[in-house]
Amino acid sequence: MSPKKPAKAKASPPRSRATAKSMAAQQREISVSEFFTKNRHLLGFDSPSKALLTTIKEAVDNSLDACEEAAILPDLEVRIEAVAESRYRVIVTDNGPGIVKKQIPKIFGKLLYGSKFHRLRQSRGQQGIGISAAGMYGQLTTGRPIVIESRVSRRRPAHSYELVIDTLRNEPVIKREREVEWQAAHGTSVAIELEGTYKRGRHGVATYLRQTALANPHVEISYQGPQDEEPEIFRRASRELPSEALEIKPHPYGVEVGLLIRMLKETKARRLRSFFQTEFSRVGPTVAKRIVEGAGLKVATSPRRVTTERAEQLIAQIRETRIPAPPTNCLSPIGEERILASLREQQQADFYAALSRPPAVYRGNPFQVEVGLAFGGELPADDLVGLYRFANRVPLLYQQGACALTRSVLRTNWKAYGLQQSRGALPSGPMVLMVHVASVWVPFTSESKEAVAGYDEIVRELRLALQGIGRKLGVHIRKDRKRRDAARKHAYIEKYIPHIGIALKEILDLSDRQEKKVVDTLSGTLARSRKM
Amino acid sequence: MSPKKPAKAKASPPRSRATAKSMAAQQREISVSEFFTKNRHLLGFDSPSKALLTTIKEAVDNSLDACEEAAILPDLEVRIEAVAESRYRVIVTDNGPGIVKKQIPKIFGKLLYGSKFHRLRQSRGQQGIGISAAGMYGQLTTGRPIVIESRVSRRRPAHSYELVIDTLRNEPVIKREREVEWQAAHGTSVAIELEGTYKRGRHGVATYLRQTALANPHVEISYQGPQDEEPEIFRRASRELPSEALEIKPHPYGVEVGLLIRMLKETKARRLRSFFQTEFSRVGPTVAKRIVEGAGLKVATSPRRVTTERAEQLIAQIRETRIPAPPTNCLSPIGEERILASLREQQQADFYAALSRPPAVYRGNPFQVEVGLAFGGELPADDLVGLYRFANRVPLLYQQGACALTRSVLRTNWKAYGLQQSRGALPSGPMVLMVHVASVWVPFTSESKEAVAGYDEIVRELRLALQGIGRKLGVHIRKDRKRRDAARKHAYIEKYIPHIGIALKEILDLSDRQEKKVVDTLSGTLARSRKM
Repeated sequence: MSPKKPAKAKASPPRSRATAKSMAAQQREISVSEFFTKNRHLLGFDSPSKALLTTIKEAVDNSLDACEEAAILPDLEVRIEAVAESRYRVIVTDNGPGIVKKQIPKIFGKLLYGSKFHRLRQSRGQQGIGISAAGMYGQLTTGRPIVIESRVSRRRPAHSYELVIDTLRNEPVIKREREVEWQAAHGTSVAIELEGTYKRGRHGVATYLRQTALANPHVEISYQGPQDEEPEIFRRASRELPSEALEIKPHPYGVEVGLLIRMLKETKARRLRSFFQTEFSRVGPTVAKRIVEGAGLKVATSPRRVTTERAEQLIAQIRETRIPAPPTNCLSPIGEERILASLREQQQADFYAALSRPPAVYRGNPFQVEVGLAFGGELPADDLVGLYRFANRVPLLYQQGACALTRSVLRTNWKAYGLQQSRGALPSGPMVLMVHVASVWVPFTSESKEAVAGYDEIVRELRLALQGIGRKLGVHIRKDRKRRDAARKHAYIEKYIPHIGIALKEILDLSDRQEKKVVDTLSGTLARSRKM
Repeated sequence: MSPKKPAKAKASPPRSRATAKSMAAQQREISVSEFFTKNRHLLGFDSPSKALLTTIKEAVDNSLDACEEAAILPDLEVRIEAVAESRYRVIVTDNGPGIVKKQIPKIFGKLLYGSKFHRLRQSRGQQGIGISAAGMYGQLTTGRPIVIESRVSRRRPAHSYELVIDTLRNEPVIKREREVEWQAAHGTSVAIELEGTYKRGRHGVATYLRQTALANPHVEISYQGPQDEEPEIFRRASRELPSEALEIKPHPYGVEVGLLIRMLKETKARRLRSFFQTEFSRVGPTVAKRIVEGAGLKVATSPRRVTTERAEQLIAQIRETRIPAPPTNCLSPIGEERILASLREQQQADFYAALSRPPAVYRGNPFQVEVGLAFGGELPADDLVGLYRFANRVPLLYQQGACALTRSVLRTNWKAYGLQQSRGALPSGPMVLMVHVASVWVPFTSESKEAVAGYDEIVRELRLALQGIGRKLGVHIRKDRKRRDAARKHAYIEKYIPHIGIALKEILDLSDRQEKKVVDTLSGTLARSRKM
């Protein structure tokens, strides 16, 4: 028994007895900022090295989203300055469209605020938490405000804001606001000072940026680390912007009773038929009629007059009605050609392959899985394969073990495709494997967006994609093995041709000329067979 | 290449070009209810079977917290009624202090509202999310309100509320409100209808309640499943309430610049010395003076006049000052005796052990690790050991792989204590192992509170606790092995004693009486040696 216990039992005062009334007095609202201050590990701020990387990641995500939405080829500058021991200033500058002045405080100084949460289309950010959380972490560990400079056009001045979050109210507090000089016509720069640890290697900033370049060949990034003399440049591999991701309406299959009731209440449609046609994707007049009448309602009924019971019947009817899959132009996959181009750019290998699965749907949300690999060449043959995970083109560097992408790779039988693999482990061999999930709503396992949750439909698509690319790899490895076997045989035969010549000369008593002819004929035959 | 791509490229309209202005128009606040509706898997509602268990868990957590705070021995009734296929009604009733009428709507109909978040003391709930999230999930999947009945005393009537959440505003909407009959003097009952799947087994409700009883021997629970004829009763094993967890002030070591700045602004103290003495635990006049003067400030300075730079110096000074560890009466561990009693009650084994580590601190938060085990007897010898994880006395049934408790068990070298263990796996043998972390703030890896994050200090304590109990186990296993070896030897000798008698009789020509005496003497010696 621990020595603490008896002592404590003796010392404890007579038990205080809370009542319903005294307990009621303690009840309070919790601001979302306070919540995440205490739960910072949910946001990726559980260690000083992760905090630094997460801050950069949130700023880069936002910059890339903004540039693409404005159809601008992104030019990013990422800089880390050492301020003191274990204190850094992170500055990310982009050439994006800029941010309208009055929106700046809320975007950077309020959690759960943004443009991406309510839209069904693929983007890197989706929660409205990231960058303001990074600012809040900086404020918490250093007391310093987040500094934003932004300019929207040559005709307007650039504005600078210094902001902190009032965590009790989850509202921005403007510490300083002014006009500043800004060279370019438009763009945004964010600076955050925070306690952190600078690390290189697998979880380092350079690794993260290199993988970002891999999944975003249209991006150019200049990176200046705190200990580097020269900036590292990740060059643009393609001047083509990714295909545009369009916003879609929710698909009926993804809607549950509670949401339907809310939509019925909020819609501007005055009749049930037009409600279904305007508020959902893939519902035409015939499908709308079938759903409404199947639930015992009339197409002309007002949505506001639908009871909970009828809403349940509508849901039951939706589930029994054949409705086409949601449109997939809300997605912007990398594409097989660009995956191949990126892999060729970054990896010195013998063989490259890529595979994009057709879009699929989970809980009404379209998503798409893509995989790519580089094999052989200068890649290390004895290590486990390098696994690069991506969600909506963003590299995932942490929580590999908790991620559905990793688990799908582990569960694939790579031995069938010619690689070695221990039970429950990654395969080993000279290979880099990239796995990408794109979706209008990636189901991350936490707000830090480091790992993807294992919804059945997603796991199924991952499996099919990995098996598909595995087969391509298997064909290459088998061909390669055959080729090498043949080469070995050739070399062997080649070595003995002169001896055959000598032997034949002796046995058949050939002239030197005859011997040479035999040797030449044999060598020629061998050379021709090698070409096959 | 997938056949989709070229078709899509052809069909896509000319690219729309968002501007800073058009993007600003899209910015919106996101209510925390909407956020968790979309991210339901963060709350433990990612599958229908988990949804059912999570709902029960949240209601039971709240009931137990309320009973203990009011010093009432908890009597709980948990009932699951099948309403339709894959639809259930969960009803949890307690004998707690009841809830003051006007608090009911917010407690059950608003996320991030509660009494436990702002206090530093051990409790099951801590986030102010759980039960309202369960109600919201019910509303989302069935459209039905959450129904609460509560009574605070015989002098007052019981009240019933039917509530839904307005998810756009994160506010409760009262659907119905009335007085109802209620037998007992006080208590609360919560009913939630939801889509779910009822499962037995490792992740089943009965398993969860059995483990709850294991960590809470003072609790009595009656459980009526949807398919059972008779309720299952988990009997109270002890009538003694757990030691009371008291609220403490934050410890200086856990405070960062940002929080200090906020505290300096909000305090009622008018001088720095009294600020430190009243707002923190373990700071007396001497320590306060040392901190303040070490930072170049005066003890009589007003807290409001401290600048960010001075606040940083105060933090630096705190880190250099020796301050006693925080008080630990904010914790209420189970205790070694009760762990042993519970294990004896539930497990038919040969050997029981328990170990409570002394309290420790991470990020300024006191915490304490306890472990217990039952070994041998009727436990299955060939399986992996059964691992029961607990945080603040609540069983954790999901995300075993992502939990620091599990990882600590995996990393312990159980071979040293006589168990078999494969690399990276749980040990195998006839054993049940329970691991408990109690803290004023358990750092869970997600809002669903299923796994504990691996803060260094917690992992260290877990390791020491597991090694400590491992040594106890090792002593038992070695003793047991020795005992069994000795028993085998004894049996062997015993078998031959008569033959020795016969041989001696022949060699020394003994009489029958002499032979009998020799055999008796040898048997007596053997019997005495067995007692040793």
